[in-house]
Amino acid sequence: MEENTIFIGNKPVMNYVLAVVTQFNEYDSVTLRARGKAISRAVDTAEIVRNSFVQEADVADIQISTEEVENYNNEKTNVSIIEIRLVK
Amino acid sequence: MEENTIFIGNKPVMNYVLAVVTQFNEYDSVTLRARGKAISRAVDTAEIVRNSFVQEADVADIQISTEEVENYNNEKTNVSIIEIRLVK
Repeated sequence: MEENTIFIGNKPVMNYVLAVVTQFNEYDSVTLRARGKAISRAVDTAEIVRNSFVQEADVADIQISTEEVENYNNEKTNVSIIEIRLVK
Repeated sequence: MEENTIFIGNKPVMNYVLAVVTQFNEYDSVTLRARGKAISRAVDTAEIVRNSFVQEADVADIQISTEEVENYNNEKTNVSIIEIRLVK
């Protein structure tokens, strides 16, 4: 995992937008990583950053995959993953 | 819009998995398109199709963008879009 990867969870989207903008002050590449329902928020974050905060940022790469996780009853279940790499 | 584009909405994910598998019987390329919260379901659909139904399918391209839409109060608001192109 690269150092400047931001994990998108269930907080308000602007929390993550701020985190990405802050990372862009230090790095030229920032990766957003999300699972399951947070995937939509990761895409929102990338789009808000590009449209409103770091207009020169581009989507360099988007990868989707599947991870096996254990739910609350210790049953194995699959969850989708997205990784969006932004570069400026 | 290509002919074999499937619009992902709020139905159960397996509805869309079935639609993609059906399209793959006729075409070598299928594009999944979703907005807002349905984006997670589009990624789920692509991953379930690839992992369980059409193992030879690959993700050829993923694009994200923003569209301006009018909400119920006729106010303009932005919504994120994802397009996932699967090929076999």
